[in-house]
Amino acid sequence: MPEPMFEKIALIGIGLIGSSLARVIAREKLAGHVAISTRSADTLARAEELGLGDSYTTDAKEAVRDADLVIVSVPVGASGAVAEEIAPALKKGAILTDVGSTKASVIAQMEPHVPEGVHFIPGHPLAGTEKSGPDAGFAELFKNRWCIFTPLPDTDPAALEKLSEFWRRCGANIDTMDPAHHDMTLAIVSHLPHIIAYNIVGTADDLQTVTKSEVIKYSASGFRDFTRLAASDPTMWRDVCLHNKDAILEMLARFSEDLASLQRAIRWGDGEKLFDLFTRTRAVRRSIIEAGQDTDAPDFGRQAGK
Amino acid sequence: MPEPMFEKIALIGIGLIGSSLARVIAREKLAGHVAISTRSADTLARAEELGLGDSYTTDAKEAVRDADLVIVSVPVGASGAVAEEIAPALKKGAILTDVGSTKASVIAQMEPHVPEGVHFIPGHPLAGTEKSGPDAGFAELFKNRWCIFTPLPDTDPAALEKLSEFWRRCGANIDTMDPAHHDMTLAIVSHLPHIIAYNIVGTADDLQTVTKSEVIKYSASGFRDFTRLAASDPTMWRDVCLHNKDAILEMLARFSEDLASLQRAIRWGDGEKLFDLFTRTRAVRRSIIEAGQDTDAPDFGRQAGK
Repeated sequence: MPEPMFEKIALIGIGLIGSSLARVIAREKLAGHVAISTRSADTLARAEELGLGDSYTTDAKEAVRDADLVIVSVPVGASGAVAEEIAPALKKGAILTDVGSTKASVIAQMEPHVPEGVHFIPGHPLAGTEKSGPDAGFAELFKNRWCIFTPLPDTDPAALEKLSEFWRRCGANIDTMDPAHHDMTLAIVSHLPHIIAYNIVGTADDLQTVTKSEVIKYSASGFRDFTRLAASDPTMWRDVCLHNKDAILEMLARFSEDLASLQRAIRWGDGEKLFDLFTRTRAVRRSIIEAGQDTDAPDFGRQAGK
Repeated sequence: MPEPMFEKIALIGIGLIGSSLARVIAREKLAGHVAISTRSADTLARAEELGLGDSYTTDAKEAVRDADLVIVSVPVGASGAVAEEIAPALKKGAILTDVGSTKASVIAQMEPHVPEGVHFIPGHPLAGTEKSGPDAGFAELFKNRWCIFTPLPDTDPAALEKLSEFWRRCGANIDTMDPAHHDMTLAIVSHLPHIIAYNIVGTADDLQTVTKSEVIKYSASGFRDFTRLAASDPTMWRDVCLHNKDAILEMLARFSEDLASLQRAIRWGDGEKLFDLFTRTRAVRRSIIEAGQDTDAPDFGRQAGK
């Protein structure tokens, strides 16, 4: 039997991402021992019931002791506190990484606490669903998805390669970029879509002329597509908004500007302008399907499954 | 063998909706004869290749002659011209209906042309996918979806009941409401979501800091959910925007107002406000799933199928 990649992996946080990691680590036999830690005793008990790891503790310091790889999977607003807490217990030579959706803020919060000799490599697997908690995870979550690293100037290439190999074995493809570019890119491909989805669902929920039950009943005509993203974890997304503020505000400004222009075209009956935009956006979807990042089945394949 | 519901049905327009009707009419044996008409000779030839009907013509007048039920499935901007064209050939006692996404405008366009003795019943099946054309249709499209009628003050109850029974046999559930309420309801559940989706995909397509290939590559982190609606038929949606202008502008104004308030909460770091909104919207999705209007499978069930 081949050696596991890591003697001991510590998972700090066992929500959708953490518990998916636990499952794929077990399936691919990537660790000799998986230590699980989370602040909530209830969540920890549930992780133990699910048999997600080899040891369980609410004390993150305890979990990271002797770990060769520590993966922090908590809302980005909590990453500084976690780093501070675990820092004294980190093993020399260990790799410390995270999965946060914002990178500049996570680096600013965590880096000051990282002890000499520990390889801190900020990371972000672009994978998720609208579900959260340890029950929501599954081993295939990272398959054919991108994991982006934003290495620091002094990152050890060997450590980066080892962590990359770990994520590849979890099913992901690897990219690297600088933190600012990551944050701008994610602002448009992920943060803005979530914010817009939350907003439109909120608007619909606030109407008087159209009742809530009508919105629910007739949602298959378009609205329901937004409700999936708007059902994502509130704590995670509050933190993303607070920790990638500048890039998000920039993208929101562009979006609103474009929407004002589209609104004007509707008001003035500029059919040509509407038709041009509506045609151009079709091509974007085709490219996404060709890149293997979405299904081509009509309605995301929902019709077939019903 | 039981009598079909209608001796002859004429389908004017054979896109996604028209061709889905053709398929379910055939499967459920709802007509003795299905006459298909569309302006484009190419589309008509394709419909004939697919064997969607019993007779085919580019002359709509020809198709509606002797028909007991005429279903107009064209972009809403074309409904007036179609009504004018077919009016002289409509049979006394025939039911004339449409499937347009806006109702006040369609009524204003069609009603003046409807001859005495013809039952004009405006209708709108809330069903569709992002695909278009005669190849995109399928018999199950209307299953468990709502078909809304906006009857006129003098609508014959027997004709309305017969048309309702037709749609029920196509799989749909029936609702009736007045045209203005229909247009306001659809503005929020369908028109605004499509416009917002088109807009965000357009914004992402226009960036310089983040390349198009990055948007495509990383789209699974949220963006791709919007691209489905933004791949819908451009002609249909241009016409919807032009023909439900007032209700759409009203909903756009509310959406923008809410977005400005959300943007302010992000700028000022008001985490509580963000958390409250993001929590409230989760409940809306749960209601939609309980109402049988969406799947509860994570990621719309896309992960499983890949």
